[in-house]
Formats: sequence, structure tokens, C-alpha cells
Amino acid sequence: MVPRYARKEMLALWSDERRLATWLEVELCACAAMERVAGGPIPPGTAERLRQAAAAAGPLDLVRIREIEAETQHDIVAFLTYLEERLGPEARFLHLGLTSSDVLDTALALLLCQAIDLILDGLRGRLLPALRHQALRHRRTPLIGRTHGMHAEPITAGLVFASSYAELDRAARRLQASRTEIAVGKLAGAVGVYGSGVLSPQLELEALAQLGLVPETVATQVVARDRHAALFAALALLGAGIERLAMTVRHWQRTEVGEAEEPFGARQKGSSAMPHKKNPVLSENLCGLARLLRAGAGAALENIALWHERDISHSSVERVLAPDMTTLADFMVHRAATIVEGLTLHPERMQQHLQQSLELCASEKVLLELVARGLPRGQAYEIVQRHALGALAGGAGLRARLHTDPEVASRIPPSVLDACFDLQHHLRHVDAILARVFGPEVLEGP
Amino acid sequence: MVPRYARKEMLALWSDERRLATWLEVELCACAAMERVAGGPIPPGTAERLRQAAAAAGPLDLVRIREIEAETQHDIVAFLTYLEERLGPEARFLHLGLTSSDVLDTALALLLCQAIDLILDGLRGRLLPALRHQALRHRRTPLIGRTHGMHAEPITAGLVFASSYAELDRAARRLQASRTEIAVGKLAGAVGVYGSGVLSPQLELEALAQLGLVPETVATQVVARDRHAALFAALALLGAGIERLAMTVRHWQRTEVGEAEEPFGARQKGSSAMPHKKNPVLSENLCGLARLLRAGAGAALENIALWHERDISHSSVERVLAPDMTTLADFMVHRAATIVEGLTLHPERMQQHLQQSLELCASEKVLLELVARGLPRGQAYEIVQRHALGALAGGAGLRARLHTDPEVASRIPPSVLDACFDLQHHLRHVDAILARVFGPEVLEGP
Amino acid sequence: MVPRYARKEMLALWSDERRLATWLEVELCACAAMERVAGGPIPPGTAERLRQAAAAAGPLDLVRIREIEAETQHDIVAFLTYLEERLGPEARFLHLGLTSSDVLDTALALLLCQAIDLILDGLRGRLLPALRHQALRHRRTPLIGRTHGMHAEPITAGLVFASSYAELDRAARRLQASRTEIAVGKLAGAVGVYGSGVLSPQLELEALAQLGLVPETVATQVVARDRHAALFAALALLGAGIERLAMTVRHWQRTEVGEAEEPFGARQKGSSAMPHKKNPVLSENLCGLARLLRAGAGAALENIALWHERDISHSSVERVLAPDMTTLADFMVHRAATIVEGLTLHPERMQQHLQQSLELCASEKVLLELVARGLPRGQAYEIVQRHALGALAGGAGLRARLHTDPEVASRIPPSVLDACFDLQHHLRHVDAILARVFGPEVLEGP
Amino acid sequence: MVPRYARKEMLALWSDERRLATWLEVELCACAAMERVAGGPIPPGTAERLRQAAAAAGPLDLVRIREIEAETQHDIVAFLTYLEERLGPEARFLHLGLTSSDVLDTALALLLCQAIDLILDGLRGRLLPALRHQALRHRRTPLIGRTHGMHAEPITAGLVFASSYAELDRAARRLQASRTEIAVGKLAGAVGVYGSGVLSPQLELEALAQLGLVPETVATQVVARDRHAALFAALALLGAGIERLAMTVRHWQRTEVGEAEEPFGARQKGSSAMPHKKNPVLSENLCGLARLLRAGAGAALENIALWHERDISHSSVERVLAPDMTTLADFMVHRAATIVEGLTLHPERMQQHLQQSLELCASEKVLLELVARGLPRGQAYEIVQRHALGALAGGAGLRARLHTDPEVASRIPPSVLDACFDLQHHLRHVDAILARVFGPEVLEGP
Repeated sequence: MVPRYARKEMLALWSDERRLATWLEVELCACAAMERVAGGPIPPGTAERLRQAAAAAGPLDLVRIREIEAETQHDIVAFLTYLEERLGPEARFLHLGLTSSDVLDTALALLLCQAIDLILDGLRGRLLPALRHQALRHRRTPLIGRTHGMHAEPITAGLVFASSYAELDRAARRLQASRTEIAVGKLAGAVGVYGSGVLSPQLELEALAQLGLVPETVATQVVARDRHAALFAALALLGAGIERLAMTVRHWQRTEVGEAEEPFGARQKGSSAMPHKKNPVLSENLCGLARLLRAGAGAALENIALWHERDISHSSVERVLAPDMTTLADFMVHRAATIVEGLTLHPERMQQHLQQSLELCASEKVLLELVARGLPRGQAYEIVQRHALGALAGGAGLRARLHTDPEVASRIPPSVLDACFDLQHHLRHVDAILARVFGPEVLEGP
Repeated sequence: MVPRYARKEMLALWSDERRLATWLEVELCACAAMERVAGGPIPPGTAERLRQAAAAAGPLDLVRIREIEAETQHDIVAFLTYLEERLGPEARFLHLGLTSSDVLDTALALLLCQAIDLILDGLRGRLLPALRHQALRHRRTPLIGRTHGMHAEPITAGLVFASSYAELDRAARRLQASRTEIAVGKLAGAVGVYGSGVLSPQLELEALAQLGLVPETVATQVVARDRHAALFAALALLGAGIERLAMTVRHWQRTEVGEAEEPFGARQKGSSAMPHKKNPVLSENLCGLARLLRAGAGAALENIALWHERDISHSSVERVLAPDMTTLADFMVHRAATIVEGLTLHPERMQQHLQQSLELCASEKVLLELVARGLPRGQAYEIVQRHALGALAGGAGLRARLHTDPEVASRIPPSVLDACFDLQHHLRHVDAILARVFGPEVLEGP
Repeated sequence: MVPRYARKEMLALWSDERRLATWLEVELCACAAMERVAGGPIPPGTAERLRQAAAAAGPLDLVRIREIEAETQHDIVAFLTYLEERLGPEARFLHLGLTSSDVLDTALALLLCQAIDLILDGLRGRLLPALRHQALRHRRTPLIGRTHGMHAEPITAGLVFASSYAELDRAARRLQASRTEIAVGKLAGAVGVYGSGVLSPQLELEALAQLGLVPETVATQVVARDRHAALFAALALLGAGIERLAMTVRHWQRTEVGEAEEPFGARQKGSSAMPHKKNPVLSENLCGLARLLRAGAGAALENIALWHERDISHSSVERVLAPDMTTLADFMVHRAATIVEGLTLHPERMQQHLQQSLELCASEKVLLELVARGLPRGQAYEIVQRHALGALAGGAGLRARLHTDPEVASRIPPSVLDACFDLQHHLRHVDAILARVFGPEVLEGP
Repeated sequence: MVPRYARKEMLALWSDERRLATWLEVELCACAAMERVAGGPIPPGTAERLRQAAAAAGPLDLVRIREIEAETQHDIVAFLTYLEERLGPEARFLHLGLTSSDVLDTALALLLCQAIDLILDGLRGRLLPALRHQALRHRRTPLIGRTHGMHAEPITAGLVFASSYAELDRAARRLQASRTEIAVGKLAGAVGVYGSGVLSPQLELEALAQLGLVPETVATQVVARDRHAALFAALALLGAGIERLAMTVRHWQRTEVGEAEEPFGARQKGSSAMPHKKNPVLSENLCGLARLLRAGAGAALENIALWHERDISHSSVERVLAPDMTTLADFMVHRAATIVEGLTLHPERMQQHLQQSLELCASEKVLLELVARGLPRGQAYEIVQRHALGALAGGAGLRARLHTDPEVASRIPPSVLDACFDLQHHLRHVDAILARVFGPEVLEGP
């Protein structure tokens, strides 16, 4: 994790402290369930006493744990050894019948769920509302739509935000679906069959329920890795959705377009050599981060086909991807929100570009009228293309040229021809589109 | 598409004939809806007359269409020009107000839905049932579970199939979810605002409904590409799930393991130089194809951030990925089914490997007993590890060694120690696991 | 391979006919070397007689070969069986001691070398010369350089082409280096130790030399796959270099910039709905194809870690990647050349944009003068930023503002201040840069 | 960077301290060259005085620099402001005419070169020698070669190490080639044309030479990113080469094979639940890390097509990839060396597996003899396959079966048939292969 691209909530979530505390929580819940369900080995009240002892002992001593791990070269063994040092002999009742992966995978599921929740909070609490606000605020701000980077026909700025809203709302739904897939733990022993005397499907179900998880359907030594890969794919899709939004901002801000500007701090310096430049660096940064998420999704897909009942090759990949990808995605959501919230639009520039192309935009409608009035499509296309290219070359505009074309005049009445050039008519369905995204209540708006 | 890795259904689905026929279907449905909803330009009965004319004219003439395209360098324009040649002047009422992408994206959605349906048919109609059959048939065939490629503790062969079933069932659900996301068309004109006189949200809704699709929430010139990327990610996840299954077969078949064999044709030749070799080439092939699906998913993620209201960079990527990825996934499903259906298991070899490790597998349970009976975990671990390594080195087995260890004997009664070595007890929860996958009815089985 | 993105030379290269003819060539060269070196089994003149028989028999009968393969399910066995049918009993001397991979990998090396040569021909024969031509033609065509999409300081259009030239020249060198790595065959038998009586390192060396190849240093059953992955990585790098060039064209062509235009056929249609639009579709297409090459490079990297002395998982990947990636790269080179050769530049638009920013571009030089004349950098930066932002906001330009600023006036003499605004001085090193790319002879030019 | 997978040399290399010290070094070299070459603005001796002042001032104060950066939100501006605070007013002569990227890219080149050197040191100083040692030590240790995971024909263990040596030697050469490509700096100002009064190609050449770098041929604002992508691809290729080696170790160590074992610390714990297991976790870990390198290479390829004269989207990607990929590659090299150096081979197990298959391995040679003696290949294949499958099924071995087959006996004399089963003859070319890798001097060995 590069701290530069991490919010403090995520740094805390993926800290060693939090990871070890989560392991302890898993061990305690397993122990408590074992007391209740398995009976036998664990004296009543053990889990509760251990929980209190842990609370009383204060934060886990990471330095000591690392010392032990340096010797044992095994993280869970080191952790359990430490707990016996720290919490006394009753700590031997922890981890009964469990295998390391029972604790590691269950804890990873918990941390990933928390990470997803942070990301969804940012999406639903900040970025989506910001997009909604801009979409409605600019629902009637006309803008020339661009395809292939070329002026096409008018849209409104609000639609651009609405389109991003709809895409990122889908990304949020996918992330929510992957949360359900990943909220899966495992307390089923070395190869997933509850082989040791104390484990059972029932015990696992109860212990995991305490943690908000359900058991893996058929575990090997580990939870199946397609679940994690699906999550990382969802994060890459979220990243690419944000990238599309950022790409739009970058295009809008470029000097020749100048239709919008990213927020720019009062004391911020733009370029060490060119003091006047205000560059869309936040959006460019988002485009870069989206690449990292894409790459990570690929590596996660390679983690699925583990050997037999598991090999540990996935582990190093996840040590990097789990914190990095969730942290970057979370950061991206908030950075995108900052951009959308603080974006300065320049409707006058939008208007200016619109004017340049407005007449040409009507070409489609004129073409349509000619065809509907009996001209073969090929001929109609050639007439309109000729006048459009003429208008582009300078001199008379498209509307004037069409009014004076005898073939056109013979087929389209002047008033119908003029109607082809009417912006309001062109945009008459915008509210209906917005209602599809935000619900019919937006139709009430001004 | 490499025909070697394609079933004929998929070759047909992605043929030029089918693509153009799908375009025509989209144009006809749009035309029919326009007649009903938009009124105006299109004379009543036009769509129906064109549909009949198309039926009467027989298959589309691909050679002629390609000739026209060579001139116009625009596929949709060539197609429409051809239709005017073929169906007569009424064909000018086709494509009214539409942009090329209206037809292309709607047709692509239809073809992708059909491709997904083929894949799901293979999954639900063949591969999943084959896995279920083997899972239940071998529910009690014991097998040494392996972690890190090393013998761990016993499982049953049925569980391995059940684990794959559960994973591929998740893959099928994800694919189904992505079908919902991709079943989205667009008949909204050049920049998605129904700018031409004849289009409207209502018309689009009706025309798409005829095709089994719904409208894009906020279209640009195209349907948003996160939908396609999500589908391709789902295919890559399916591929990786099949890869895990194939990896297991490869491991089982390797000479030293020899626990299972792929089906091998009577006349098939194994190796041009070594006639006796029966290699797991089908499974190896599946592992290779999974790599192609992974790669494709990455390219699709780059297609999302199009410029403004679209650029056409995604098009070439999709021309390759849409047919290739669905075709490969479909092929993989059927090849995997062939393997699972025809797999020969060798339970006697499984038994033989199991025996080699059965005693060592008990080490976990003995460790657990020692801890439960008051020995600190570290000490217990060292005792068991010492005896286990001793047994591995030869001479007395683990059980014998433990029975004669005074520290062990002082804590664990002999009968309890013996119970640690009981296979049936170890596997007592297998049926409960299978019930989680296949439902409680499997508990009735023999 | 999508024929749409393939030149006919590549389609021919990757045809079944050529592949089988290449197999035959490998078998004949191996046979001839065996006659000379191994002595023993093969009667003198066999190879030559078989070569003549093959020539006399005409083209290979693919239909018959496929029939046999359908039975044997083994491509090389089918091929050899066919040759015995076709060339008579002496054909049994072909493939003596060889394993399938000896033929397959050696033939693949030959085909890949030919494919690389085609690509290099396109690069060195067409694309690089076209870039050089434009670089020199526009060496003095001034253009505003852009960073972050924002106007920065002047460059010349020629430099943009020169930069692309230098990058694609590096790509060509990498491809050449990967050709050396891939020009490696193998005739070493089942596991690479020349185990059969007739093979030997010497025989392999001689046979491969006839084919222009050298032997694999230490073969397993196959040639090592890092060689292929290195080639595919080189192709992806080439693709990305072309993508950068295409990205520039797309930016230059966008409506608001309008500084260049892709070639556009006289009869070509731009948009089915908007006849006047001339879109940079060739360049957009190149950006899409670059994604496919990137993806393929990733899959090839997964092919390296084969099991033991080989598994066959790489084969399906290469059946797709080898033809697809070389064909796409070749197509991209020629499409890029078409763009560069036919690109229309609009120097007047370049001039116009340059004028807008020229004064602001001087800000860096003024900053530098202030610092050199003793003003702390921070203060100098603030003065210049203030005036630059003022000029951007309208009213007096930067030069005028600076001339009237007392702090500036007190430090920089007016003539020095004016020199900061001199375009020719700014571009005085352009020729020296071009000489680094094209050699000192370009300094002679006009 | 995950410290768990980082050697301390790499952690130091990518520390903030080292990065800023490298920036300072670049600034000082640029300043010194400016004094010499550009004359003018900088008083003689400035660079040397600043260098001494910096040395006297001790380590850079990172806390203070971060404070300033928090305000300016620009790393280079913050750094220069700090230097003025720290080194006094002469520090204003630093960075004259430079743009941030001049310093950043030149410093990045230096750090990457140092990182490559560390990796090459590990390769050439440790991993390759360890492979050579094992290759020569085990040059005559016979081993059954395996294809498709199935026994094929004999090789020697030494060849496996030699094959890895040859592959990783190629990886080292590629890395060396990419070092040449990346040893490129840039001191050419805002858009690469030395626009400010003080810069020039000559000055750049001299300043970079002091740093061991050469100038970018045609710079934009930055050094071209294909150079970095080529390096990251070379690292991914190295990673995949190591993965192949690790894959072999994993296969050799699996319980049923047991031909080799990774080093295992005396106090190391294998599994928290199964104390006896010694798992190939180091090799598994290497397979995981190779995935991360593959993924990173893909992201780097997306960094190449920057907009116009640069956008900053590559920056975040490189902040992650440059340290992570070099650090992981370095770690992998040393971990692989640890494995190879400490690998325990079990020649007796190798011998045992070899015996199981030795007779069957002769099948290829017998086939060859039959063909050479006039039997059509198809018939010969069927005879040998029949006996081989018979031998596999149990009872008489292949040699015995062939001796009693009348068709075989009628063609192959018994002594020739027996020679087909001779291991020494089979391996007679091993030394010649090793000589290709390590030079002819290895032929002298025992």
C-alpha cells in the first residue's frame, strides 16, 4: 500500500493490529461455540474468561509476536504461542481442532467485508449523491455530445453525470453481490471435513454466525478462491467505471475544450515550470489507479486453481492484493467524489461549442426527413453530406444551404426544415431519462 | 475463433449470417414499434411487409453485402443499402432515426444472451449433473487429502467433485447475473437522447421488449461497456473454476499418483514416440484455455472508459472477444463434462496412498487431545512432530510410537488414542457437507 | 484471427497449408541430416527422393489429413500416416527418433520468424520511413505542446513524429532481439536427450542450420516457453507504441483541436446518422487492437512454467496467440503507416492554438530570469503565477502585465524580457534533437 | 511493498530518504553542468558549494519536506522550497530551467538501474552459480523425465538445473538489455526542447554522463514509457522463469514423488495442525509472486500511450510498480537461490521411479528399430502400444513381451533389442548438452 493513495480508515483496517485482533476474535468465537456445541474438552466459561483476559491485557504486543514468528516461521503458531504467554494456560483451549486456514480465511473474510463496507459507504454516501446532485443541477445545461472526439449532437451535462451515476450504481451492486460471496468463513479443520473430534458443521455454523458469516459450502483446507477473484473483478469494474468519469473530466478540462475544471487548492502549485497551469491531475491519477486494479484482478484469477485441497501460492498474492486493491478502490471513490463535488462547469464554453456544431447536428434529422419523404437513403445521405462538408469549409451554414437546395426544398416544407434545428425539441426526453435513473420524483424539479 | 476449440452451435451463432440476420431482426422490430408508437413517417403494415419480403427473398447475400461494404467502408450503411436493393423502396423506412450503434449494440446483446444461454445449458444440462453424479457415486470413496501437494488427512473423492460442483454452480449464477446486465439494448439515436423526431423512450421500450431486452438506463451513443466487461469477467471466473477441476484431474492422473484417468479413445494415439502413454491432454488443454479467458477479461476492462459519448476503440476488441470468449467457455464446459463423465477412478490406488499416510494424519487429533488434556500447545506440537518425523523416517509407525511415549501415555487412555486413528469417525460429516450442496435428499442415499 | 484485421500475407502464413508444408520441410531436413550424420538406418538419397516425391505429388491433401486426424486424434501421427500413403514406403524413414514436439516446435519457430520478418518489413519499409518523412517535413511546423491535455510550451509537429519514430525503432530492435531468441529449434527426442539411437547434438545442429535455426540449449520435450513469451511481450510493446501514435492523432483530430485529420476515402461514409462527421476511426481501432496484444502477452507469460519436462497446456494458448498476435501487430503497422502517410496536418490551426498560449508559455523563462537575478524561487513563482492567471482571465496579456510590474521591471531589462517571448529562440535545438534520431545528415536540410 | 517479501537492500533503495537524496544528486549534477556549459546565470563554484552545504547539513529532514508538500501539493516544489530553507539563497540556482519531470524521471532511471543491479547481482552472484553447482553435481543422477505429469524417458537431475540455468541466464540478459534501455535521463525542460535559456542538448549530455545516463532521444515532458514497460516485462519474464523452477521443486517434493525437498529450518513448524508435514512453501510462494509480476507488466503496458507531450496517469502506477516489482523480483531471486542451495535430492527415490518406467521408456527405440527395419510406422506403433499397455496392466514386462513377439523377433536381433533398454546409451549426450550451457570445460569433470 502506498500511503499516498490510502485513507486512514483503510490503513487502520489493514494494520497488523487489526489483523491480529481479528484472528483473536475468530479464535474466541470458535472457542465459545465449542463450549456450547461440542461439549467435551472445553470447560464452561473459558471463552468468556479468555475474552476478559485479553481485554484486560490491552493491545496485542506485536513486537513480541514478531519475535516468536521469526523463530517458528509460522504466523498462526507464533500467535497462539503468544496468547499462551499472555492469557495464561487456558489459552490452550483456543484453536482446538482448527487449522491455520480456519482462522486466516475467516479473518480475511471479515476484513474484506469491512473493506467492502467502507467502499460502499463512500460510493453510496458520497460519490453517488454528488453525481446525482450534478446530474439534476445540470439537467438543462446543454452540451455538445461527442463521439470519436468529434462533435455529434447535443446532450446535457446532467446526462453525463447521470450516466456515470448509473454505471457506478451498477458497480456498487456488483460489489454488494461479491460481499455476499465473500462473507464466508470456515472452521472445518485441515481438509474441510471436520476431522478432529471437536469440530462439526453445527459448531461452525454457530461460530460463524456470531461473526456475520456463513460456512463455505464445500471447503478444502481453505475457502474457495473464486470468491476472492470475483470480489477483485468487481473492484476492477468499479475502478474502470471511475476511470470513465475521470476521462470525461480530463477531456472537458483540456485547454481547447475548457468546459469544466477540477477543484484546485488556493495554495496548490500547478507546475514547477509553468505557474499558470491548472492540470486535471486528480482525474489523471484516477486513470492510473484503475490500471492497477485491472492488473490485480488478473492475478487473482490465477489464484483459483490451487492444487488438490490447497497450495499456498495464493497467499502472497492476497497479502498484496487484499489491502492494495480495497485501499485503492476506496481512495478512488473519495477522490472521484472530491472531483465531482468541486467540479467547476463552464456552461458558457459549452454553449459556445454547441453553437459551432448545432446546425451540423441537424443533419441527421434532415436526412431522416428526406428519407421519410421518399428519397432513397443513399441519395439523401449524399445531399446532406455535401452541404455539411460545405458548411464546415466555411461560408453559408448548413441551414441556409439546405433551404436553397432545390431537391430539399421540393420535399421538405421550410417550417419542418427549421424544426430540425430546434434544440429544445432535441432534448425533450432528457427528463424521462433522468427519471429512469433517479426515479419519477425528479420530474417534479424545476 | 480456432474451430478446434469451438462447438458447431457457437460457430453458427457467431457466423456472419447470424449476425446480419440479427441486425435485420432489430431493424424490423424497431420499424414495427415506430409504426405503432411514433405514428407519422411509416405507413401502416410496412414492418410486416418488409418481414415477409425478407422471408421470401431467402438468405441474405453476404457476397453482395461485402461488395458494398468494400466501397462504403461502413458496415451498417452497406447493410442498409443492400436491403434497399433487396427489399425494395420500402426498406428506406428501416433505420429511421437510428444510429449504427442502436442496431449493433442491440444485436450484440441478443447474440451474447444466446451465447450465455448455450453456456448455461452446458453447465446445467451436462457438467453440473456429471459432477453431482460422481460426487454421490464416490461419496464414500476415501482418498488422502493433499495440501501443498503433500498428504494431509483423508477426505472422499465425492467431496472433490462436490467442491467443484459448488464452485461451478457459483460460476453459473454469476453468468446468469451478467446475462441480466447484458440483456440491454438501445434505440436512442446518435447520442442517446432520442434526438430525431421519431424515437422516444416509449418506442425503445416496446421494440426492445419484442427482443427480450430492456433499454440502457442512460445511453451514450452506445450501451455502457461495464456490462460487457462484467460478462467477460464472469467467463474468466468460469474458466478458472474449470481449470481447478482440470488441475485436479492432471494431478490424479500423474504416474506416481494414478488415482484417476481421463477418458481415452480406443483408437487415440498418446504420443508419437511413446505408444503406451495415456496423457491427461484434455485437462491440460482446459488449463491453457483458462489463460485465454483470463487475458480477455483484462482487455474488456480497458474498453470501459470510452471518450465522451463513445469512441470506437472497443469495437475491435469485442469483435475478437465476444465470439472467442463465449466459444472457448462453451467448449470448456463440454470438454470438462466429457472428462467428468468418462473419468476412470482407481479407488484401490486411493486406498493405497491413504494407508501410507493414515497414521500420520492422526497426528492432528493426538495433538488436540494432548492440548485438551493440559499440555501446552508448544510442547504437544513438539512431541507429535518428533514421532511423526520418526515414523516417516521408517521403522515403527506413529501409532506404535505414541503408545510407547510416557508423556502421551500418562495423558491419553489407549482407547482414546486408538480412536484418533479411526477413518470412519474422521469422515462422519461427509454426508452433511454433501447435503449443503445437493440438498437434504442426498442423505437418503446408500 | 479476424480477417478484418489481417493482411493476406499473414493469412497465408498461418494457413493450414503452410503449417503442414513447414512440418514437411522440417521432417525432410531432419531426414537428410540423419542420412549424412547418423549413418545407419536411412539409405542414401532417401531425403532427396522423398523431397522430389512430395514435389511431384503436389499440394498436401488437407481433407485426407483431417480425416486421419479425426481417427487418431493426434496431429503429427495423422500427418505421418498421410505421408506414408502419399509418398510411399520410404516415408517411414521420416520422423525417425523424433517426437512430435521436435517437428511442432521447430516449425513454429520457422513460422514465427517469418511472421516477425513480415512485421519488421512493415516497420522498416513503411511505417518508420513515413514517420521520418513527416518528421522532417514538419520539423519547423510549430505546435503548442500539451501536458495533462493543457497547453504547455511550443514544440514542432516534426518532433511528435520523431518521438514516435524513436519509440517504434526501439520496438523494432526489441522485435529483432526476440527473433534471435525464437529462432531456435529442437530435434532432440522425447525428453531432449537424443535418447533414440539416431539423434545427436551434431545431427540436430546440422539439420536446424539448414532451416536457419540453432538448437535449444537445454531442451525438455519442448523449446523453452520464455522465448515465446518474450516475443509476445515485444509485440505488446510494439502495439503500445503504435497506440501512443494513434492517441496523438485522435487528440489532434478532435473537433476543438482540429490540427490533423486521418486519411478519409472519397466514398467512405463517416456516420450512418451524421453525414458530415469524419471520425478518426483508424486510430481508434489501433487503440483497441493494442489492448488485445497486451492481453495476449499476459497469457503467454502463464505458459512458461510447464510441469516437469513439459505439459501441453501451452499449446491451445499458442494456437490462438501465435497467429493472432503476429497478425494483429502486422496489421497495426500497416494501418499506422496508412495514417501517417495520409495524415493531413492543419498548420494554421496549430498556429492559432499556439498564439493563444504563446505568451503564457514564456512564464517559465521569466520565472527563471527572476530567480537567476536573485529573487527567491517562491516569490518569483507567485509573481509569475499571479500575472499568468490574470492574463488567462482576460484583459492585458502576460507580456504587458510583466512589463508594468515594478518588481519585474526592477530586475529584468525590457529587451531580456522580450526575448523570453521569442519562439525561434525557444525552438533553437529542434534540429539537434532530430539529428539524434535520424543522424547528422538531417542538419543539412532546409 | 510488503516487507515480508523484501530484502533490506531494496527497502533502503526505495526509501523516501534515498529518493530525495537522488533528486538532490540530479539537481547538483545539472547545476554543475550548467555552470560549465551554459555559463551565464550561475556563479562559478555554486554547485560545489551547495554540495558541501548539503553534506554539512546532514540527512534531509523528511518531516519538514512533507509539511511543505502538504501545503503546496507538489512534491518537487516542496523539495526545492525546503532546499532554499536548508542550503540558503544559493539554492535558487538549483532547478534552473528544469521541469519537475527532468528531476523525477532522471532520478527514477538511477533508482531503477540500481534496483536492476541488485537483481542481477543476486542472479549472477547467487542463483545461477547455485544452479550450475547442482547441474554439475547431479549430471549423472538419473531421473525419469515426465511429460504431461506422466513418466516418459530418463534424463538426469543435472539437466533440470541446467535447463533452469539457461532460462534464467536468458532472463538476466533481457534484464541487462532493459537496463540499457532504462539508463536514460532527461534535462530538457517542460516539453523536451530545451526551451528555457539555460538548457541545451550538450548540457544535458554532460550532466547525465556524470550520473551514468544518456539523454532521451526525443523527450516529451518525460522519458518515453515504453522503456519502463520493457523493464517490467523483463521482470515478469524473470519471475515466470523462477516460477518454472519452483514448480519443479513442488512436483518433486509432493508425497508420491518425494524426489527432493526444500530446505526446512530446524525450528520451523510445518503446519499448525499436522506437525509432521514439510511443505514446499518457499516454492509455492514463488509461484504466487510470479503472478504479481505478470500482473504488473500488464499495467505498465497501459502507461505508454500518454496524451500528447505527457499526462500524469503513469505516475501512480509507477509509484506502486517500480518499488514493488523490483523488490519482489529481487526477493524471488534470493528465495530461489536459498531453495536451490539447500535442496535435498533423493536419488534413491529417483532410481525407484526410474525402474518402474525404464522398460516402457524403451518403447520409442523399439518402435524406431521396427520402422527402420521396414515395418510401416502405423503397424509398428500398434505392436509396441499393445505390449506397453500389457506390461502396464501387470505380468510380464515390456522387454520380455517383445522378445517373445514373433513379428518383433523376425526383424530385430535380440542384442539390438536389449540395447534399446540400456540407460547409459540413452544418456550418452548429457555432457554435450551441459557443455552448451557451461562451456566445454565441464567435459573435463568426473
